[in-house]
Amino acid sequence: MGSARQVNIAIIGAGGVGRCFLSQLEQLVKRRPEPKLALVYISTSKKAFYTKDYTTIVLNSAVSNLASSTETPLAPAALADYLTGSSSKAIIVDNTSSQDVADAYPLFLSRGISIVTPNKKAFSGSYKLWKDIFSASAQSGARVFHESSVGAGLPVISTLKDLVDTGDEVTKIEGVFSGTMSFLFNSFAPTSGSGGQWSAEVKKAKELGYTEPDPRDDLNGLDVARKLTILARLAGLEVESPTSFAVQSLIPKELESVASGDEFLEKLPQFDSEMEKVKAEAEAEGKVVRFVGSIDVGTKQVKVGLEKFDRSHPIAALKGSDNIISFYTKRYGSNPLIIQGAGAGGEVTAMGVTSDLLKVLSSLS
Amino acid sequence: MGSARQVNIAIIGAGGVGRCFLSQLEQLVKRRPEPKLALVYISTSKKAFYTKDYTTIVLNSAVSNLASSTETPLAPAALADYLTGSSSKAIIVDNTSSQDVADAYPLFLSRGISIVTPNKKAFSGSYKLWKDIFSASAQSGARVFHESSVGAGLPVISTLKDLVDTGDEVTKIEGVFSGTMSFLFNSFAPTSGSGGQWSAEVKKAKELGYTEPDPRDDLNGLDVARKLTILARLAGLEVESPTSFAVQSLIPKELESVASGDEFLEKLPQFDSEMEKVKAEAEAEGKVVRFVGSIDVGTKQVKVGLEKFDRSHPIAALKGSDNIISFYTKRYGSNPLIIQGAGAGGEVTAMGVTSDLLKVLSSLS
Repeated sequence: MGSARQVNIAIIGAGGVGRCFLSQLEQLVKRRPEPKLALVYISTSKKAFYTKDYTTIVLNSAVSNLASSTETPLAPAALADYLTGSSSKAIIVDNTSSQDVADAYPLFLSRGISIVTPNKKAFSGSYKLWKDIFSASAQSGARVFHESSVGAGLPVISTLKDLVDTGDEVTKIEGVFSGTMSFLFNSFAPTSGSGGQWSAEVKKAKELGYTEPDPRDDLNGLDVARKLTILARLAGLEVESPTSFAVQSLIPKELESVASGDEFLEKLPQFDSEMEKVKAEAEAEGKVVRFVGSIDVGTKQVKVGLEKFDRSHPIAALKGSDNIISFYTKRYGSNPLIIQGAGAGGEVTAMGVTSDLLKVLSSLS
Repeated sequence: MGSARQVNIAIIGAGGVGRCFLSQLEQLVKRRPEPKLALVYISTSKKAFYTKDYTTIVLNSAVSNLASSTETPLAPAALADYLTGSSSKAIIVDNTSSQDVADAYPLFLSRGISIVTPNKKAFSGSYKLWKDIFSASAQSGARVFHESSVGAGLPVISTLKDLVDTGDEVTKIEGVFSGTMSFLFNSFAPTSGSGGQWSAEVKKAKELGYTEPDPRDDLNGLDVARKLTILARLAGLEVESPTSFAVQSLIPKELESVASGDEFLEKLPQFDSEMEKVKAEAEAEGKVVRFVGSIDVGTKQVKVGLEKFDRSHPIAALKGSDNIISFYTKRYGSNPLIIQGAGAGGEVTAMGVTSDLLKVLSSLS
């Protein structure tokens, strides 16, 4: 039946982040015998593997068990029934980017099941879903943590929560929130040297695996808009959705509707002069251009798009595909609290999920 | 008697940080009615004020009650008896920098009393005390948090713990860990312009309240050594004490034994040529000099002292009295995870204490 000293884990999603998380969980279980973490359920969008009696799935065979399984995933209500059928507490680890899974969070939480996830959809969708999630959590006492929804494993969400919860007044949040955009602009408009052609840098980023399969899914700015929505809400603004504020897309209008990412990449060089102009304008002021997001809490203004920065500005001096997030607050005064480092990648994203899992465990003990 | 839904708070220390904490606690109690936080004891090194029946002291009269009290502080064992005499859980907030209070942590923790504190002494004293603290905590389940012992409210300790607890391998930690040293070197050897005379900058820092009453207490490097000791231990090194590794003192030998801070400041200009030489050597390499601490986990080497940095290095580009801490880890690769911002000051130090208090409360619920 599962014992009280056991905590049941259900993992949804077994892609890049999911596999890194599984491997971190395996290490964690070796280091920390108490409480006993039992992986009882794992699923993708098509398949599921789980134990009827809540015995643990051997962690290093979870992926192969899943591959050979003929079961389909449980619907949210059935998954909740399954998990609450044990006397042990349960935690769902959602390693998908699925809106459907996100929509089920209020149900899971209301049934006392805690959630840890890097899935942005739950926290950047409708404001109603946001409210439903946190009120379900407040009522049942089940916890929900989502550190990796912004900046992967970087301590961004926890730091913002700490600032707000201890009564500081956050006045502005600004930064580079996309590893892809960071890489593109650090190469296209470096602080020293002239940088590459825009279309060539986009192509290179895709080849290095830094973009989505269709690079337009990065260049439309929506990923950054989702992260800004999450931070703005945590800072107290009732942002309705990631499309309810100004988001600058770097997709030329003429290429918005071309059929494929490949066709997009093929035609992008025709529009290089537009980005060159933007770069030259910044250079004329002794600056460089970067793709940033900002939240002005006082004026409730959320913005995503291109801005110019002095070459000595921390945002200009970023390296590789690093993120940087600056929190301006009343207590910190004119110099912001800054967090910087890799904001994408399976291992660091899974790290945020694992550390969230440890936070839930600490609150259960 | 105090109820189970009540959590009793005992504050030791009512100086700069203590008063900021009291004000943050007052705001916190207004925002969060549950659990009921009851300040039952407050003391300085000379006086104490507490309620025999665990009713709460009105927060905004705690300092005046303390000032007019004729009671002396309870000895550690008596304080533990007093706090465990209530049916409510208890948390001690140690806002002192007292070694005596730190030495009593194992006693408090073994009696089930949790501790939150910015006091470095407990975690940077003997390695035996460190072990006694964490084994007492592990045995009783009482929690101990000390975010503000390094970098004030910056999320330094929690981030390092998350890295280690999720199984990342920390290879190197490097940074500027002293607001005073940061201010001194940012003014003495700025990245652009020539900067001031060393002795004049020390005098200015003292006048601005950025140094201890005797500036030698900053210039001897011990404060940084204590912080490095804490981080090295969290990274897994058994550092015996803050004097068991190389610490460079910026006090000229001849001035180590002069009677007062004032006499020290008066005579310091005689030694300006030494610091000018250090600055010129760095400049000849196109670099600037900074006072940094570093921990190489692999070679177990901990160092505190002067080092040269390229002008574009984040450590060189620091502003004001900001701290910067870089974590190099296996998962983060060549670009470190960086945390930067004000690392000193009453409000931000108290913020770390308040957020630690929230972590303890979350684990009690």
